[in-house]
Amino acid sequence: MEPDDTTLQFDKHGNLRHLISLRGLTAELLTELLDDAEGYLTEAGALPARDESLAGRTIGNLFFEPSTRTRASFDLAGRRLGADVLNLDVNTSSRKKGESILDTIYTLEAMHVDIMVVRDAGDGVPAYIARHVKDHVSVLNAGESDVSHPTQGLLDLLTIRQHKADFRNMTVAIVGDIQHSRVARSASEALQIMGVGELRLISPPALAPDPERFPGARIVDNIAEGLKDADVVMALRIQRERIGNLDGVPGIDEYYANYGVNHENIKYAKANAIIMHPGPMNRGIEIEGALADGPRSVITRQVTNGVAVRMAVLNRIGKMMDAR
Amino acid sequence: MEPDDTTLQFDKHGNLRHLISLRGLTAELLTELLDDAEGYLTEAGALPARDESLAGRTIGNLFFEPSTRTRASFDLAGRRLGADVLNLDVNTSSRKKGESILDTIYTLEAMHVDIMVVRDAGDGVPAYIARHVKDHVSVLNAGESDVSHPTQGLLDLLTIRQHKADFRNMTVAIVGDIQHSRVARSASEALQIMGVGELRLISPPALAPDPERFPGARIVDNIAEGLKDADVVMALRIQRERIGNLDGVPGIDEYYANYGVNHENIKYAKANAIIMHPGPMNRGIEIEGALADGPRSVITRQVTNGVAVRMAVLNRIGKMMDAR
Amino acid sequence: MEPDDTTLQFDKHGNLRHLISLRGLTAELLTELLDDAEGYLTEAGALPARDESLAGRTIGNLFFEPSTRTRASFDLAGRRLGADVLNLDVNTSSRKKGESILDTIYTLEAMHVDIMVVRDAGDGVPAYIARHVKDHVSVLNAGESDVSHPTQGLLDLLTIRQHKADFRNMTVAIVGDIQHSRVARSASEALQIMGVGELRLISPPALAPDPERFPGARIVDNIAEGLKDADVVMALRIQRERIGNLDGVPGIDEYYANYGVNHENIKYAKANAIIMHPGPMNRGIEIEGALADGPRSVITRQVTNGVAVRMAVLNRIGKMMDAR
Repeated sequence: MEPDDTTLQFDKHGNLRHLISLRGLTAELLTELLDDAEGYLTEAGALPARDESLAGRTIGNLFFEPSTRTRASFDLAGRRLGADVLNLDVNTSSRKKGESILDTIYTLEAMHVDIMVVRDAGDGVPAYIARHVKDHVSVLNAGESDVSHPTQGLLDLLTIRQHKADFRNMTVAIVGDIQHSRVARSASEALQIMGVGELRLISPPALAPDPERFPGARIVDNIAEGLKDADVVMALRIQRERIGNLDGVPGIDEYYANYGVNHENIKYAKANAIIMHPGPMNRGIEIEGALADGPRSVITRQVTNGVAVRMAVLNRIGKMMDAR
Repeated sequence: MEPDDTTLQFDKHGNLRHLISLRGLTAELLTELLDDAEGYLTEAGALPARDESLAGRTIGNLFFEPSTRTRASFDLAGRRLGADVLNLDVNTSSRKKGESILDTIYTLEAMHVDIMVVRDAGDGVPAYIARHVKDHVSVLNAGESDVSHPTQGLLDLLTIRQHKADFRNMTVAIVGDIQHSRVARSASEALQIMGVGELRLISPPALAPDPERFPGARIVDNIAEGLKDADVVMALRIQRERIGNLDGVPGIDEYYANYGVNHENIKYAKANAIIMHPGPMNRGIEIEGALADGPRSVITRQVTNGVAVRMAVLNRIGKMMDAR
Repeated sequence: MEPDDTTLQFDKHGNLRHLISLRGLTAELLTELLDDAEGYLTEAGALPARDESLAGRTIGNLFFEPSTRTRASFDLAGRRLGADVLNLDVNTSSRKKGESILDTIYTLEAMHVDIMVVRDAGDGVPAYIARHVKDHVSVLNAGESDVSHPTQGLLDLLTIRQHKADFRNMTVAIVGDIQHSRVARSASEALQIMGVGELRLISPPALAPDPERFPGARIVDNIAEGLKDADVVMALRIQRERIGNLDGVPGIDEYYANYGVNHENIKYAKANAIIMHPGPMNRGIEIEGALADGPRSVITRQVTNGVAVRMAVLNRIGKMMDAR
C-alpha cells in the first residue's frame, strides 16, 4: 500500500470498508475491533459464538497462495456469521487459463460476492483490487507478499492485550526472518499505533529489515540483547529453503542456537513473558518445541483469537454494508 | 447428444428433468426459464435473491475438467436455493484410482445426491450419465467437450433479450474458434430456437465449423463482413496453445488484427451493438481490453445472468422433483 | 491401536468419545449404532434424513490421503446433522510447509473444530491424535493404513444385517488383498464381535494376512473352497500396482481367474449370497462387472448405509458432547 492509500480503506462516512493494512488506522478503531473480537470468544468445548450479521451475504476466499490455517480461519469466521463462503483455489484454474486477477474479481463481483478475502504473493495486489472493485464490494487482505497481514496483526494485538496490562510500558521482541515477514510488519504497525513501549526486531544481519519499514523499532542481531526483559517474545516462521542457502544465513543448527527461541535464551526475557508464533511452526528451528507447548506459550490462543478478530472485522464490514 | 436423445431430457409428464442440450427445447420453455431467471436478479450491492426451493436436496458438482467460474456459479446458485452442494474435483481422486464415471455416479446417487452437475471433456458424457441414473436423479450439463454448454446458451440468450427487442430482427455475430466452441454451439441453438434473424459465425478458415453442426448460420471468414450491422457481437475464448500452432491459425498479432474484436472492426457493427464474451478472456487476443471494459460490453452482466439462469433451471428441476 | 487402547475410545462415563477401531466395542453398542443408522435411511428419491443434532458444532475432515467417496460421505453426514464441515486437504498445504500433524490438530482445536475426521496412511495416527487432543475433542478414524476403517466395518455390518437373519449361522467370505486391507480388518472385527458363524479370508498366499491379526478366521488360498456355501461374499479392492509386481502376486488375467469374484466361482456360494465391495471397484480384476451390477449385489446399498452409519456415530458423539 502506498503512503497515500490509507484513506482507501474507509467509505465516505468514515467507516471501515476494506482492510488492506493496519497503517493509518487509529488506536480507537483497533481497540473497538479487539473489544468486538472479545465478544466472539467462548470457552474451549463450548459452542463457538455465532450470529447472523452476514446472513445472505457471500464471501469469496481468493487464495492465490496456498494456506490451510488462514483460509480455514476466514472460512469458519464467515460461516459463523451466517455468510455463504466460496473457497476458490485460484492457482489451479483461472490463472492456468491466463485470466487476469481483475477479471476474476469482476466475475465474482458479478456473482454477488461482496466480500473478497485475498491472499497473494504479489506486493500491492489487495490495494490494487480494492481500487478497482465496485462501490458495494469490500476487500480483506489475508496475507500480501512480505508487506501486510492485517488480521494477523490484530490477533497478535488481541493476544498481547489479553495477557499484558499496558502497551505503553511493554517491551515486545520479534525474532527471526524480519525482512521477509508480513507478520512482523503488521504486528509492528499494530503495536506502534497502540504506543508500544519498546519494539525490538531480532534477526541475523542478512535477514534484518529495511529500517524505514519499521519506524521506531530497534533492530538487533544479538538475541540475548534483544530478548532482555521482554514482556512478549514472538518467533517468526522461517522458510526452510532460506536456511543455509541465503548469503549470511546460517545452517539449521546455528540458526536454532542463535535465533531460535529456546530454553537458554528465553531466560533473558521476563519470567512472565508470553511466547508467540504465527504458525505453522518449524519446531527445532525458530522455536523449541517444549517452549511452544509450555505454560508461557499463547500460540493456540492466537489461533482462537484469529477466528474472533476475523469475525469482528467481517461483522463491522457487514454493518457498514447494511447501513448503505 | 444423439438426434434421438431430445426426449431424454423430459420426464413422462413432459417436465424438464435433465438439461443436456438446448436442442429440441421449445421457444416457450426457453422463455419461461428466462422469465424465471429475471426473478432471481437483484441490484449489484443488494442481497442476492434466495429461496428454499431446493432445501433438503443435495447437488453434486462433478467437474472432470477444471473450472472456477462455472463451478462457482452453480455452487452459489444451488446454495442460494437452500441445497447442500458437494463440490467434487474428480480428477484428483477417483479417476486416479481407476473408478469408472458410472461408478462415481452410482456412488453419489446412493448418497442421495439427486442433482448431478457435470462438466467433462468427453463428447456425450452427460447424456450417457443421464441414461444410466435412477429415476429420481437429474443431470445438468455444465460444459461438454466442444458439443454443448446449455446454461451458457441460456445466459447468453437472457443477456441478449435484456438489451435487444426482438430476436427475429436481430443479427448476431459470433467470432473466433467456432470449431471447438461449445459456447457457440449452445448460443446458436438457443438463438435458432428463438428465431434469430441472422446468425453469422466468423473464424479463420482453419477454425471454421462443420456447417451441419450450425444449421441456418452463415459461415464467414472476413470479420468486416461478419460484423456488418450486427446487433450482438460475441467474442469466443481461444485456447492459447492453438494460436500459431494449429495449421492455418495465425500467430497472436495476426489473430488479434483479423479475428480479435477491437476498436477498428467493431465499427462495422451497429453503433448500439452489445459486446459479449463467455470468459475467461484473453485480452489482446480475441478481444481488446478497452472494449471488454467499455460501455457496450455486457460481459459482467453475462456472469450475473449465469447465476440467475442456473437458479431458474435448478428451481424448475426442484419443482419437478417435488411433484413426484 | 495398541491392545491397551480400547479404553481410549470412551469418556469417563463410558460413552463413546472417539471411534478409532471396532476392537473392544460390545455387540450391544454395535447393535445400537446400527439401529440408529436405520433411522437415518430413507427411500431413494425421498429427501435424505436430517436433524440438527450437531447444529453449531464444527467437523474437520482431515484427509492426509486422497479420497472422494469417504470424504463426501462424512461431509454429507455432518451437514445433514446441521454441523459446519471444514474440508481440509492437508497434503497440499501444511504438510508442504513442514507442519506436524499435532500442530495442525491443535490449530483446528483452537478454532473450535471439535470433531476431527482423520484419514492417514500412517499406522496409529488416529489413536495418536486422540491421545493428544483436549477433553472436548473427538476423533473419528476414516481410514488408517492397513489397520482400521471402523465406519466401513459398521456399514458392512449394517448391510449384512439388512439381508441376512443371524450372524451366528452365517458364513462370510472376504476375497482379495487381505494383507493390506483395513476394510477386511474392520469387517472381521465387527463380525467377530457379533459372533459370526464362520469367517473365511481368501487370497493368494503372497497377500495372505498375519493370522494373529484375524483371530478366529480361516485363511484360505483356494477361492472355490473359500466361497463354498457362503452367505456373504465381499470382494476387496486391490491396488493395481501390486498386481504382477509383488512377488507371488499373479498378473491381471490370472488374478481375475483365481481371485476375482466372477460368475464361475460365485456358484460355490449360496444361491442367495449377497455380493459386497467397498469401492472404488476395479471391474474385471477383483470383481466381474456383471456381478457388481447384478441382483445379488448390495454395493450401492453399502454406500447408502455408509452415510447413515456415519450420521449415527456423529449423532452419538454429539449427544455425548451435549451431556457434558
